Amino acid sequence: MKHLLKMSDLSVSEIQEILDQAQRFEQGEDWKVETDKFVANLFFEPSTRTRFSFEVAEKRLGLKVINFETENSSVQKGETLYDTVKTLEAIGMDALVIRHTEDHYFEKLIPHIKIPILNAGDGCGHHPTQSLLDLYTIQQEFGRFEDLKIVIVGDIRHSRVARSNAEVLNRLGAQVIFSGPREWHDEQNANGIYMEMDEAVKVADVVMLLRIQHERHAEKMGLTMNDYHTLYGLTTIRESQMKNRSIIMHPAPVNRDVEIADCLVECDRSRIFKQMKNGVFVRMAVLRRGLLNKGGK
Amino acid sequence: MKHLLKMSDLSVSEIQEILDQAQRFEQGEDWKVETDKFVANLFFEPSTRTRFSFEVAEKRLGLKVINFETENSSVQKGETLYDTVKTLEAIGMDALVIRHTEDHYFEKLIPHIKIPILNAGDGCGHHPTQSLLDLYTIQQEFGRFEDLKIVIVGDIRHSRVARSNAEVLNRLGAQVIFSGPREWHDEQNANGIYMEMDEAVKVADVVMLLRIQHERHAEKMGLTMNDYHTLYGLTTIRESQMKNRSIIMHPAPVNRDVEIADCLVECDRSRIFKQMKNGVFVRMAVLRRGLLNKGGK
Amino acid sequence: MKHLLKMSDLSVSEIQEILDQAQRFEQGEDWKVETDKFVANLFFEPSTRTRFSFEVAEKRLGLKVINFETENSSVQKGETLYDTVKTLEAIGMDALVIRHTEDHYFEKLIPHIKIPILNAGDGCGHHPTQSLLDLYTIQQEFGRFEDLKIVIVGDIRHSRVARSNAEVLNRLGAQVIFSGPREWHDEQNANGIYMEMDEAVKVADVVMLLRIQHERHAEKMGLTMNDYHTLYGLTTIRESQMKNRSIIMHPAPVNRDVEIADCLVECDRSRIFKQMKNGVFVRMAVLRRGLLNKGGK
Repeated sequence: MKHLLKMSDLSVSEIQEILDQAQRFEQGEDWKVETDKFVANLFFEPSTRTRFSFEVAEKRLGLKVINFETENSSVQKGETLYDTVKTLEAIGMDALVIRHTEDHYFEKLIPHIKIPILNAGDGCGHHPTQSLLDLYTIQQEFGRFEDLKIVIVGDIRHSRVARSNAEVLNRLGAQVIFSGPREWHDEQNANGIYMEMDEAVKVADVVMLLRIQHERHAEKMGLTMNDYHTLYGLTTIRESQMKNRSIIMHPAPVNRDVEIADCLVECDRSRIFKQMKNGVFVRMAVLRRGLLNKGGK
Repeated sequence: MKHLLKMSDLSVSEIQEILDQAQRFEQGEDWKVETDKFVANLFFEPSTRTRFSFEVAEKRLGLKVINFETENSSVQKGETLYDTVKTLEAIGMDALVIRHTEDHYFEKLIPHIKIPILNAGDGCGHHPTQSLLDLYTIQQEFGRFEDLKIVIVGDIRHSRVARSNAEVLNRLGAQVIFSGPREWHDEQNANGIYMEMDEAVKVADVVMLLRIQHERHAEKMGLTMNDYHTLYGLTTIRESQMKNRSIIMHPAPVNRDVEIADCLVECDRSRIFKQMKNGVFVRMAVLRRGLLNKGGK
Repeated sequence: MKHLLKMSDLSVSEIQEILDQAQRFEQGEDWKVETDKFVANLFFEPSTRTRFSFEVAEKRLGLKVINFETENSSVQKGETLYDTVKTLEAIGMDALVIRHTEDHYFEKLIPHIKIPILNAGDGCGHHPTQSLLDLYTIQQEFGRFEDLKIVIVGDIRHSRVARSNAEVLNRLGAQVIFSGPREWHDEQNANGIYMEMDEAVKVADVVMLLRIQHERHAEKMGLTMNDYHTLYGLTTIRESQMKNRSIIMHPAPVNRDVEIADCLVECDRSRIFKQMKNGVFVRMAVLRRGLLNKGGK
């Protein structure tokens, strides 16, 4: 059975298979399940892109979708994630898409469950479909990863996107450069070097901005949102210094005029909405993979 | 591309086309989309009739439905309506149904979006599918609009139903009569004359009651709900003075024994539940129109 | 038209028909509705098993599903259950699944509604699909009800499961034994005898544990959760004294180490997750029955 839990579980060839399948879906391949198959979406944190992009992917594949609502469920009576998941398995789910606040929530589930879990984000841990859609967007643009310079900007220490992406981009042959406030550097992440933002934008093939999750995090450092934009944001001046074919990425939701100038969000270099579109194809590929291999290993 | 934003955008012949299509749907026409098409419902205000009537209409047309839940989405992280809408477009929606608290919320979206928006109510502004289902119900009853006397009763000043309906009923040749507390008269609305309730019910072909949105609005005028019913409500006595074939309408939810006597809600003259039924056919027509013309003008 | 309101409405032969149909569904019978049919799920109380099990059942039958959300609906504007139900009927529902906090909520609806209501739990009253799935699980295990000893443990007085099950098990020829705190005995329920837990587990064919709904109920009696487990719970010691082929049931969600020792929840004797699986087949049978007979009697 093929769970999707974290990027580090996937070999380079498995990643490539997923990206290839995503591409076939983008090109119009019409693969649908042949019998009734059910997927449940369990989101214990708010989400727009991941949540609805999974739902669109599921429905395009002809899956029947159960949107588990934590606020109206027995989670309110104290039912644990484990019992909730076992319940959904018992009533006939063929796969589960889960986002949960707890790091590695899946570790206690995996030994006891017979259906694939697709991790839609765990605490500060992993968010593999975000990584995969980022990779897909980069490959679509450049046709390769080798020797690309990917600048990741923001809260490197707490970002699940930063951690997953840096690890896998290294494996794929890209060079990862981190930038952002010193307080958010992550000494334990050996997958990138640090560079000042003004320098980094000049060498970047991809400027990958991270979202400021909580205004107060920045404020604790004595930074207003305006300061952040000036010091670490993608300003129009910095954008003008980017190389010719280099692109801008952001997992969204964007804080306009903080991580990136408002007017750049939909500029020619921006792939921010393209990333969202690509997310559907990647999630279709990942769902297909989980369901096809159900029962196998 | 054919948005549906406000009644004043629609010509009389466009309105007639929509009503004709609604009638074909009521008579059993089975039109379904031929390929996967997605519609998202975005409701930023509570709704039963509009929300679920749209969902039924969508599913009858074979559309795939995404119910966007504001409370579990990135709206919680401060994402704007604009970014939410662009996101839903990016992940593959073919149309959006939106209700929002802000007047004319759609004006800032329209220039930047390539899929039809069907307005399910904006602030105190417009609610075109409610108007269309009201028109459909009237036409079904009388076969015409010319020379009909439509009495609209209640908070004329703040009601989106009153404003939209008065404008369009005038264009269609009906005569609009407003009634209700003086404080709620709308001097800027030239589409009707005012008449005391006791007189109005006697001449009306249609008595169209508006919902008291907030008890405190009436109370500010020193009116209890009981007072309101006696002075401006459709009491059993007033109903007994209505003309032979005249009918009662209300957009619902009804405050029983306030706008209308409890026992009249389901009486022979009442078209209140018929309006709800008709709402599905009208929304099917409007969805079909939006989707068919996608890409055209 | 065939509502499903309470077990006492069903004759033994009607029950047997439902269980037989559930079995055919479990064995793979693929019955789907031939035209568009809509079912709405209205849950005014949190639920995981009942809510999602109904939704899976509905979708397996090819029904179109409307999940009515009380928190985003006109219920927030004070709309009554009656008006909500009439609205859903008006917009085209073919059946309604309702859970509500009020005992016998359905009594005021039945005379005025033309579509079947499937009761998914009313206050402390009834929960017929839970009873039916319990019966199905017992019949699946033993092939009969006659002379089986069913021990029901817990809050006999306030449990809808206890009341419904005791009544119907008696009719089917089983012997019902109640156990649990004296304060929770139900003098008005003549459908069982009382026995101490230590004795009851030895004679039981089925140990059917009830959920402690609210910790404070037990605490009012001066019982900690730990005390409850020791005095009335299914401990590992008590389980070791159960007869060879006897089984454990619980409607879930389970309070682990309260009603039942954590390690027993998934033990060989436990049918707790099997009950959930069976719930889908039983609900498919009940939906089919409601829809097939629409319009008839």
